Amino acid sequence: MKRICAMLILLLMIPVLFGESPASRSSTANAETEIRAVLETQVEAWNRDDINAFMQGYWKSDKTEFVGSNGILRGWQAVLDRYRKAYPDGRAMGTLTFSGLEITVLSPTAALVLGKWRLDREADHPGGVFTLVFRKFPEGWRIINDHTSAVIKK
Amino acid sequence: MKRICAMLILLLMIPVLFGESPASRSSTANAETEIRAVLETQVEAWNRDDINAFMQGYWKSDKTEFVGSNGILRGWQAVLDRYRKAYPDGRAMGTLTFSGLEITVLSPTAALVLGKWRLDREADHPGGVFTLVFRKFPEGWRIINDHTSAVIKK
Repeated sequence: MKRICAMLILLLMIPVLFGESPASRSSTANAETEIRAVLETQVEAWNRDDINAFMQGYWKSDKTEFVGSNGILRGWQAVLDRYRKAYPDGRAMGTLTFSGLEITVLSPTAALVLGKWRLDREADHPGGVFTLVFRKFPEGWRIINDHTSAVIKK
Repeated sequence: MKRICAMLILLLMIPVLFGESPASRSSTANAETEIRAVLETQVEAWNRDDINAFMQGYWKSDKTEFVGSNGILRGWQAVLDRYRKAYPDGRAMGTLTFSGLEITVLSPTAALVLGKWRLDREADHPGGVFTLVFRKFPEGWRIINDHTSAVIKK
């Protein structure tokens, strides 16, 4: 009985003995690394004209949202359809670059990403900003909300 | 010793006995109610031409971000200055309405809000969409990131 009791005390002491900070610090660093990897995979997919692979960065759900100057688009499939229509071929897709990524980990399973996008195409070089909300699912970090704006150069 | 041991067992059982669900459900409901109240207070402030009171909904920090077709603006003061410049008087401010608010509570201290905005003014009726990331601070829920887009009616 005494031994069980000692074990119980030890169990209760775990948060006191080890603290949450180092663990949560490393979880934040992991989240950032994993999210950056998702975005890098997206850029690589885009730049080999593979919109399907690009779309793997988004949560495969009817609730996934894409927000912009056309309003609110709902659902993974609708987002894929929009990309396919807006970027029918490699010429339209151009070369994508993300820059200035700022990742704010909001919780062990949620994060906000602010960044800039740019497309280099033969005819033009559109660009702008985006905010992405990521959540962590069993399959990894995925975008649940993408708000993208074009920034008009003045 | 036996009594202490029983107490320890009881302490360890608390999460099992009571579960986290009802508590976290009520915390989610509270978060939604509190966030809605912040947004209602903002709308009321706007509609009495009080930009300072409207700005109380934003986190008072140099890190607060306002994102849109002009790029990224940083800091509570910069956001206030932008509002003051873009909406110099009651005529420019018009009557603000938020609609279709969808609040996703990401954690006990973070939430995503998707919604539509509309300004009714004598000369025009601009409108669009926004995504807001809220965090809970000791003073309450505040916007840490506002991404607002105008939606052009086609």
